[in-house]
Amino acid sequence: MATAGKVIKCKAAVAWEAGKPLSIEEVEVAPPQAMEVRVKILYTSLCHTDVYFWEAKGQTPVFPRIFGHEAGGIIESVGEGVTDVAPGDHVLPVFTGECKECPHSKSAESNMCDLLRINTDRGVMIGDGKSRFSINGKPIYHFVGTSTFSEYTVMHVGCVAKINPEAPLDKVCVLSCGISSGLGASINVAKPPKGSTVAIFGLGAVGLAAAEGARIAGASRIIGVDLNPSRFEEAKKFGCTEFVNPKDHNKPVQEVLADMTNGGVDRSVECTGNINAMIQAFECVHDGWGVAVLVGVPHKDAEFKTHPMNFLNERTLKGTFFGNFKPRTDLPNVVELYMKKELEVEKFITHSVPFSEINKAFDLMAKGEGIRCIIRMEH
Amino acid sequence: MATAGKVIKCKAAVAWEAGKPLSIEEVEVAPPQAMEVRVKILYTSLCHTDVYFWEAKGQTPVFPRIFGHEAGGIIESVGEGVTDVAPGDHVLPVFTGECKECPHSKSAESNMCDLLRINTDRGVMIGDGKSRFSINGKPIYHFVGTSTFSEYTVMHVGCVAKINPEAPLDKVCVLSCGISSGLGASINVAKPPKGSTVAIFGLGAVGLAAAEGARIAGASRIIGVDLNPSRFEEAKKFGCTEFVNPKDHNKPVQEVLADMTNGGVDRSVECTGNINAMIQAFECVHDGWGVAVLVGVPHKDAEFKTHPMNFLNERTLKGTFFGNFKPRTDLPNVVELYMKKELEVEKFITHSVPFSEINKAFDLMAKGEGIRCIIRMEH
Repeated sequence: MATAGKVIKCKAAVAWEAGKPLSIEEVEVAPPQAMEVRVKILYTSLCHTDVYFWEAKGQTPVFPRIFGHEAGGIIESVGEGVTDVAPGDHVLPVFTGECKECPHSKSAESNMCDLLRINTDRGVMIGDGKSRFSINGKPIYHFVGTSTFSEYTVMHVGCVAKINPEAPLDKVCVLSCGISSGLGASINVAKPPKGSTVAIFGLGAVGLAAAEGARIAGASRIIGVDLNPSRFEEAKKFGCTEFVNPKDHNKPVQEVLADMTNGGVDRSVECTGNINAMIQAFECVHDGWGVAVLVGVPHKDAEFKTHPMNFLNERTLKGTFFGNFKPRTDLPNVVELYMKKELEVEKFITHSVPFSEINKAFDLMAKGEGIRCIIRMEH
Repeated sequence: MATAGKVIKCKAAVAWEAGKPLSIEEVEVAPPQAMEVRVKILYTSLCHTDVYFWEAKGQTPVFPRIFGHEAGGIIESVGEGVTDVAPGDHVLPVFTGECKECPHSKSAESNMCDLLRINTDRGVMIGDGKSRFSINGKPIYHFVGTSTFSEYTVMHVGCVAKINPEAPLDKVCVLSCGISSGLGASINVAKPPKGSTVAIFGLGAVGLAAAEGARIAGASRIIGVDLNPSRFEEAKKFGCTEFVNPKDHNKPVQEVLADMTNGGVDRSVECTGNINAMIQAFECVHDGWGVAVLVGVPHKDAEFKTHPMNFLNERTLKGTFFGNFKPRTDLPNVVELYMKKELEVEKFITHSVPFSEINKAFDLMAKGEGIRCIIRMEH
């Protein structure tokens, strides 16, 4: 490649300060160092986590910064020691990684890599503690090791999943974060048996993906629980068969669900991060065999409280991170699920804007409109 | 049988009131009704649960009552409709049942039978709401459907497990409650992988059985946690390799265990019922793959509290009841584990008394001496 080893000048959407619209700037992207890759981003999308850290209400503010972590692209060049991927490979960047060497990476049960686990405070590469982005020599910080709101970005090789080059990047880019998190929570963790009943708390992108996972697993009743009734119609496309709005009832939603299901649902997946919904999602599963899975990220001061008899009556509570998918090992298989038409990705994509209009994606999310907005780096 | 269909007069240890020594009395035992069996008890042992309801501090007092639920015996006669067992069969009575027809019995994942689930307040047979025991026509109440402190007792057929007649009843009688609860918590629920590290909270009979289960499963480090250091030496016989007395440390035991195990144990089993120990047992498991199992029965006002991130970091918390064993289906196989010399039952049996000295078994338990005391119905 003509650009390998050289600085690339390209466009990036820079967040100069918390909550202010992003500004498309020309940035310099340094070549990848040891165990790093430089990726040409073709499509990216906006996830709540970008917005959450862009708003920086309570989180450590790291600015100026390039956000973005759901994306699809092509390897432009690789740094020293990189053997798993090569220029031209199609990849999905991932906000967490898989070093393949730590105890978590080697465990069949965990995907919480010691080396590359998500770190939202760090704005630099882990190799040398520096940023690869700059404007006039001043560093612009990274976000969760991905920073995909840039035509080119640099990542640790452990944070890119090499995928089938025939997969359309404008579709599968949404699999690099939220959709996989919800999907995996159902198929990898809750594992609803065929014909079972599943409750999904929160019908945003992650919850709808959890419903899609329950549908793929063969659940026969999928009960969506959300305070916003406008989401119910859309949720049917993702397998939801019934809906409960807790506001419509005078009793706790656990009891409403127990009444609907002869004692409790077989599985539940919590995708809101609200601590009360977490407790409800646990307490609504059937004794003897019920499994509740927590996906939504709680407030730092939240406390999970329940009577311990709820456990002793043979209920299980588990949490998951990125749907228990190992990024490099498992994400290519999620893409294959789409290629085999088992997983329907298109229905998650409700909007699309050119890179120059990236702030429109923020506006749509602020209004709660749609599910995923694809940002096209090239028109 | 000459006694079938007739009232049997025999000796039973009657608790006339809460906390007072049992009194050996001649009782009349009515014949078994539909779906019931009458069992000649040969050996029984004393479990904390008998003592707990005999003391009746806070529980519903049901007196006069015949306690006892860990035992081994032989079917004397059967009532109408009983086809699974016949006179002469060797059986273990169980405080919970398996009707084989309810959703729990039919579920591969549950043992919490809807019909025969433990009920500590009920002192009568579920068939007709009457007691089968009487003295001079006045009813003496049953306890958890077993009442094994009697030479003969009547049970629902769903509460007896038919076992290998070659198994010595003076040994395997202890498998009908506490030992199986702890054993099953490890081998059926925690399922420690070979070479893993397991923490056991509480080194009473149930905890020692959980350690024995971890040993059988192939755990390489089994860390016993108990406030009573005198239990540590004995626990080595059950596979414990290390010991932690929380009183010996200035920091929470979760942190002590994390320091000993590079971040947390792979599995933990909580056998005390103390709410703080429950929280510790959960928080001490490793992120990514740790599984904590609750066995001990908590106080009715207890509240389990933890930060939800402890779940989201991929920890699992489960509770178990009777070690997830289905009484009729699985208990015969536990007996076979003993017959194959994989499970060592003898080391749980530290004392033995004739039936006439049953109150000595209560004294031993009050003093915390030994593990199980066998009560011999015949000298």
